[in-house]
Amino acid sequence: MTLDEVRAQIDQNDSELLKVLRRRLDLVKQVGQIKSKEGTPVYVPERELSLIAKRRSQAEELGLNPDLAEDVLRRVMRESYGAENDVGFKCVNPDVRKIVIIGGRGGIGRIFTRLFMASGYSVEVMGHRDWDRSAEIFAGAGLVIVCVPIDVTEEVMRKLKGLLSDDCVLADFTSVKTLPMNIMHEVHQGPVLGLHPMFGPDISNMAKQLIIAVEGRSPEKSAWVIDQMTLWGALVRKYTASEHDDAMSYIQALRHFTTFCYGVFMARENPDLNTLMALSSPIYHMELMMVGRLFAQDPVLYADIILSNRRNIEIIERYSREIQNSIELLKKGDREEFIRQFSMTKDFFGPLAESFMEESRRLIAKMHDAKVS
Amino acid sequence: MTLDEVRAQIDQNDSELLKVLRRRLDLVKQVGQIKSKEGTPVYVPERELSLIAKRRSQAEELGLNPDLAEDVLRRVMRESYGAENDVGFKCVNPDVRKIVIIGGRGGIGRIFTRLFMASGYSVEVMGHRDWDRSAEIFAGAGLVIVCVPIDVTEEVMRKLKGLLSDDCVLADFTSVKTLPMNIMHEVHQGPVLGLHPMFGPDISNMAKQLIIAVEGRSPEKSAWVIDQMTLWGALVRKYTASEHDDAMSYIQALRHFTTFCYGVFMARENPDLNTLMALSSPIYHMELMMVGRLFAQDPVLYADIILSNRRNIEIIERYSREIQNSIELLKKGDREEFIRQFSMTKDFFGPLAESFMEESRRLIAKMHDAKVS
Repeated sequence: MTLDEVRAQIDQNDSELLKVLRRRLDLVKQVGQIKSKEGTPVYVPERELSLIAKRRSQAEELGLNPDLAEDVLRRVMRESYGAENDVGFKCVNPDVRKIVIIGGRGGIGRIFTRLFMASGYSVEVMGHRDWDRSAEIFAGAGLVIVCVPIDVTEEVMRKLKGLLSDDCVLADFTSVKTLPMNIMHEVHQGPVLGLHPMFGPDISNMAKQLIIAVEGRSPEKSAWVIDQMTLWGALVRKYTASEHDDAMSYIQALRHFTTFCYGVFMARENPDLNTLMALSSPIYHMELMMVGRLFAQDPVLYADIILSNRRNIEIIERYSREIQNSIELLKKGDREEFIRQFSMTKDFFGPLAESFMEESRRLIAKMHDAKVS
Repeated sequence: MTLDEVRAQIDQNDSELLKVLRRRLDLVKQVGQIKSKEGTPVYVPERELSLIAKRRSQAEELGLNPDLAEDVLRRVMRESYGAENDVGFKCVNPDVRKIVIIGGRGGIGRIFTRLFMASGYSVEVMGHRDWDRSAEIFAGAGLVIVCVPIDVTEEVMRKLKGLLSDDCVLADFTSVKTLPMNIMHEVHQGPVLGLHPMFGPDISNMAKQLIIAVEGRSPEKSAWVIDQMTLWGALVRKYTASEHDDAMSYIQALRHFTTFCYGVFMARENPDLNTLMALSSPIYHMELMMVGRLFAQDPVLYADIILSNRRNIEIIERYSREIQNSIELLKKGDREEFIRQFSMTKDFFGPLAESFMEESRRLIAKMHDAKVS
């Protein structure tokens, strides 16, 4: 055969591949319908693991790389979870007459609005111009979620005083938890639930997405909210407000700060970005991507997250002293101390260092797959 | 149908999917044989683009997400490039009698040893215990590649003085270029070529992998090396030694330094890593992964890369001053200045900020696909 003839056969085979994917999504819709009727969660870890184990072992029989089978299947499963979503969800608490999402027109608000509606709830979205109709909006609400930018959260919560009935669940999506939990308990006499969805507005579906829950007053009366989110596929994990906020000092504040500084520094140094991009290793490309992406977002959000907490600035100052120490070490050319600190840090990460290495290897390969020369 | 019945059909369909993938790789082997005979590069950008465009438009006809088709196809293409590799490559310069790779038993060395051998060259790997046989090893070599750790590069290169014939190409894989290029020109009278493969030892094949080339003496006599690497699928890009080293001060030194400091700082703070992991957003998981992975590697390599160049430490000191400035700004609670600097940096990244955002969104979704709850 000539090159063109073999390529024609490859094209035909690739076309067959797409038809097989189409059939899978059609079948998955039926799964969605059954699950929605029965009230089974979209994401069932055991089913996912068993699907993958079966395909990995079939791959080995066929002389295929099992990682290829797993990677393709996992990508297809993302689409499948989305297709299951399309048919709607069982309503866990049909007694709830109405859900109000304050700030529901933002990215995260829209996702939850859509999912609550797809689960048969009546959802009203409240914008900042709707406060003159507030009595009417909150009348009969069984769940009110505050989903507004962090700098207006307190102000919005305080306006709720006296507006909600005592059987209404008051919840929020703020990315810090201690202060909003305190305020919610002040302004409302009924059940309180703090939530922090740990994902951006661009997810294709809720399967395996993390939501942190901080239980407030009368958790038994807000449990249905968590159950409903679990049906959508979310992983809801419970922590206290201070556990959450302590971790967020690292997860959000310090990391956003270092990314911000690195970006500002690059802007001041002003190297030619095209040259840097052309000369990048995949690792550096990924690092530059993680920095650059911050600056496509809202500066106010980042300023407010970092400034939300005195502890954040203390951590950042300690970090800055570490940088000073490391610079002294480099100026002295003290390789031995560098290596000693490196080993200490390796011990801190323990087996995670190796598993991060392996995970990043796989991820970098996927990033490389998408590379256009 | 019951849930179990639909799931059985999905399993059967997934099994069909793997058979289609198996057929593709069989066809691709035939492509590899033809290309190896004709001397066509493994990676042909136009073919890749046209394949993807065809499948995206077919996906739209089938009511499938075109991104699903593209993601699956790109993953399959990675495997396909690997399968094309298996059949060997055309030898671009059959007149070369022998290639010697000094340090060829390391990760990167092994990749090139295998590829040169698969292209019909006679390859000898030289370890640090083989120097007493050096006259014999270098006799008749047409290409010698220095591929040793950066801290012994100079010493190894100096030992080559007088050992190579004037028609032998002397090349290196060092991650800095100015000093090694100078030394190679000193110790050797023949053609000199600086190379820097911008990938790790764990790539599955060479398709689209970046190799930076710095041309030294008589580039016309080393051009075949670049041609051979292009046949393997590599993207070889030419820069001067100083362009390369200037960019690497950012790409390697500053970035490795900040990653090192962040890791050491976390080790000293000693938060519970399991809690941090459990509470991580996908973005933070990726950031922590990029930090942790460093510490699964060789500390000496990183110390030497950072210390290789006085300029690196100057850049790091300027960076540290930027951090001090940003801390002052936060302590004053100066949101306006934070936002001003944010905007300046957004301008620096220009359209890249948005495209990084989009690229990271796709990559995070792929990382999320692989998540095990």
